[in-house]
Amino acid sequence: MMASELNLLQKKILTDGVIKPGNVLKVDSFLNHQIDVPFISELGKEFKNIFAHKKIDKILTIEASGIGIACLTAVYFGVPVVFAKKSAGSNMDTEVYTTEVKSFTHNKVNHVVVSKKYLNQGEHILIMDDFLANGCAVEGLMDLVSQAGGIVEGVGICIEKGFQGGGDALRAKGVDVRSLAIIDKMDAATGTITFR
Amino acid sequence: MMASELNLLQKKILTDGVIKPGNVLKVDSFLNHQIDVPFISELGKEFKNIFAHKKIDKILTIEASGIGIACLTAVYFGVPVVFAKKSAGSNMDTEVYTTEVKSFTHNKVNHVVVSKKYLNQGEHILIMDDFLANGCAVEGLMDLVSQAGGIVEGVGICIEKGFQGGGDALRAKGVDVRSLAIIDKMDAATGTITFR
Repeated sequence: MMASELNLLQKKILTDGVIKPGNVLKVDSFLNHQIDVPFISELGKEFKNIFAHKKIDKILTIEASGIGIACLTAVYFGVPVVFAKKSAGSNMDTEVYTTEVKSFTHNKVNHVVVSKKYLNQGEHILIMDDFLANGCAVEGLMDLVSQAGGIVEGVGICIEKGFQGGGDALRAKGVDVRSLAIIDKMDAATGTITFR
Repeated sequence: MMASELNLLQKKILTDGVIKPGNVLKVDSFLNHQIDVPFISELGKEFKNIFAHKKIDKILTIEASGIGIACLTAVYFGVPVVFAKKSAGSNMDTEVYTTEVKSFTHNKVNHVVVSKKYLNQGEHILIMDDFLANGCAVEGLMDLVSQAGGIVEGVGICIEKGFQGGGDALRAKGVDVRSLAIIDKMDAATGTITFR
């Protein structure tokens, strides 16, 4: 792929991303520790263009690293963001929807909760996150929307690790997953990234 | 205080905030669980006006509930946000600045970390958070900036619990703390809030 054919995020990954062994891509200089707000706002505009034809009432994400991209996208939709919270223990609070999300990075199961007040029947939801790998976080968020009787209009992802298959599994189920950069292959030894 | 004299956030607190026993103010309908992005963007604009005369290179906040207001303010400054991460255990990583923040809400000490790459000597930092009560989180963030050799230009807070004294203690040390709403008294029994 020629550099000129790459989109904003793909170019940024090539210039500022750092590939680490074990298929780890560090983008904490602009996406999930330091947030390059002017740049991420441009991605928010791209997501608005991608989902412009859909009715979106609310954006749902998960703490902590989804909040920045979700808020900076919500500016263009003029809608609220709800972020699901990770709770270490089982949460028996009847006032929340709860689901389980397995984290491979930290090798544990997080109970993820959203107050029942902030997800409602019939609401059109855009799910967003910074990364999609195996898809567990997105599936957990979809489960929360489903419990509330809402409609998942789409899933907006910054970086999808295509080789982990989570995005394609969701697409096979008919979910409208849109990722600004899908990585099909990365190699820490040579420092190369192959985008789909 | 007449309702007409109240600012945007103070009015919002009176209409949408819920006072709970134990001096708890729930604002999770618009600030720290659901984020009313168009409204919080207006607060971001207010912070830009308040700190317009200062040189701000970067906004520093702490995960998770500071990220929304920090990003939506950074849009107006055109600067990046860095969010400090809470780490359960002691973090001996030499690549991070670490400090301890006592959480009274959860009755534990969080080790709070920022990568050394994202706080630099001589940088002019605006610290932001959704709430300020005893001031421990802000003091922790100030400590991180100090370790990096940066300059804290100011502290921007949405809601300060004035009766807990953290904000005034910082002001007494010469820190430029600006809170959009300072609560001097709240009463769950009568549902009344007194703003400073």
